[in-house]
Amino acid sequence: MDFKSHLKQKSKYIEDKLKEYMPQESGYQKNLFKSMNYSLSSGGKRLRPILIMESYRLCGGSDEKFVPFSMAIEMIHTYSLIHDDLPALDNDELRRGKKTNHIVFGEDMAILAGDGLLSHAFEIMLGSETKSLEEAQNKLKAAYEISRGAGIYGMIAGQVVDVESEGKSIDIDKLNFIHLNKTAAMIRACMRCGARLAGAPEREVEAISLYGEKIGLAFQIVDDILDIEGDENILGKHVGSDIENEKSTYPKLIGLEKSKEVSKRLVMEAKEALSIFENETEFLAKLSEYIVNRDR
Amino acid sequence: MDFKSHLKQKSKYIEDKLKEYMPQESGYQKNLFKSMNYSLSSGGKRLRPILIMESYRLCGGSDEKFVPFSMAIEMIHTYSLIHDDLPALDNDELRRGKKTNHIVFGEDMAILAGDGLLSHAFEIMLGSETKSLEEAQNKLKAAYEISRGAGIYGMIAGQVVDVESEGKSIDIDKLNFIHLNKTAAMIRACMRCGARLAGAPEREVEAISLYGEKIGLAFQIVDDILDIEGDENILGKHVGSDIENEKSTYPKLIGLEKSKEVSKRLVMEAKEALSIFENETEFLAKLSEYIVNRDR
Repeated sequence: MDFKSHLKQKSKYIEDKLKEYMPQESGYQKNLFKSMNYSLSSGGKRLRPILIMESYRLCGGSDEKFVPFSMAIEMIHTYSLIHDDLPALDNDELRRGKKTNHIVFGEDMAILAGDGLLSHAFEIMLGSETKSLEEAQNKLKAAYEISRGAGIYGMIAGQVVDVESEGKSIDIDKLNFIHLNKTAAMIRACMRCGARLAGAPEREVEAISLYGEKIGLAFQIVDDILDIEGDENILGKHVGSDIENEKSTYPKLIGLEKSKEVSKRLVMEAKEALSIFENETEFLAKLSEYIVNRDR
Repeated sequence: MDFKSHLKQKSKYIEDKLKEYMPQESGYQKNLFKSMNYSLSSGGKRLRPILIMESYRLCGGSDEKFVPFSMAIEMIHTYSLIHDDLPALDNDELRRGKKTNHIVFGEDMAILAGDGLLSHAFEIMLGSETKSLEEAQNKLKAAYEISRGAGIYGMIAGQVVDVESEGKSIDIDKLNFIHLNKTAAMIRACMRCGARLAGAPEREVEAISLYGEKIGLAFQIVDDILDIEGDENILGKHVGSDIENEKSTYPKLIGLEKSKEVSKRLVMEAKEALSIFENETEFLAKLSEYIVNRDR
């Protein structure tokens, strides 16, 4: 099977699992569930859940223990998009070609649906029984990695500095801080989470972590590039908004060609980081290439 | 020592610990930390952290393992207030006599500070090392109780139905759903968290859980009553807002006197639930009385 078919198959697997994990739309709070499920169902590449699965497998995990964590990360990713789209933040009306959550359900519900997804992610990760010390410790560490990546020294830090930097010219250090935290921290956390869950030795955790950081940064640089060169119909969102919002981006600070070079170099370094593993790393290697070559 | 001195002493203990746990206001994201710390420092009774501590002690816990959980619950409580005060929700400009978070730091930062506090709460709970299977399992269960209480079958559910019910007349079942979820679920979760952390048997977890649910509901009914009879100067917030917002409350649905009766009965039932414990329950018994007799 070629890479794209593989990716599709894995996305489908995550998609099906996600349906099982979505709250049933009943009870007094059913509109909350509708709002959460609306955004959870909005497609996307399901990249983060796949990364947890792949990291778990690469580090020797052979059962389905990664599933609650994969579901949780997609809920956290979805909450971050809902809050990011709010009028007080990016004020976006479209996301992946669909109306954003607050446009459909109102701002109050969008805030609470985001809060609900974040809380529920932890409920899912922490919920089930554990039988051995190793299993319990791995689970604690895996959930910790997610909380760290999503938190005030991770994603939220990137969000805040991103918001504060709008309309200002910032230097490359600050831009790297934003990109590394806003996007790469969560992707790195996915890799660490899968490795922790499999009880990987520290050396493997650090290697897979480096892979995550590199592809996370590359992912964000490609995002910056797509906002200039992308096709609105393929992307499903408005192009050129970074320039309109006077956002500092990689192309703005170091130029378009140089940005492409950097993203390619990052992917090479990501692949190098995989070299310590004895298990099959082909899918993750191809995935890193896909990230720089994607058109949406 | 009398009850009030005891309570003050415990609040002071929590207050001091909280200062240690507040993020240092440095780094690119220092305004995020300022915003979080502003709301974390806004006083309040620190009731929830004290409840975790007391439940842990009552169930036999003798060390300081409850501390990260007490800090976490105060962060979650604080996040819920910040988001609740937002223009899209209650649109409050004052909280405990101080300007609300979004008035001082802007709506964007208030949303992100809330998100940050919720994520950070889990980071704190899950962060430290565990040595035995029992310790690791207790920690997982304790953090799970918090996620459940704060989540879409707990606090968020109450919030959503509360928001949706504004300006509508609702029946007592729905009002009970709101009160039980919006307020009681978290207080119940505090009790369960402390008990889980101490590795209490199921029978004790259920008893302390019942205590929490009863005082949680009483707490909210007293809140409804104070919005009618309270003193603005003592409360530190505007009185009469429930009537202005046409909110369904206990006094509105069953009358002021009947509401007082119900809150007193709940406190009696809460105290009864404590009867299975052999350890000292006096402080928790007094605390339940304090809740119905408080003036702020």
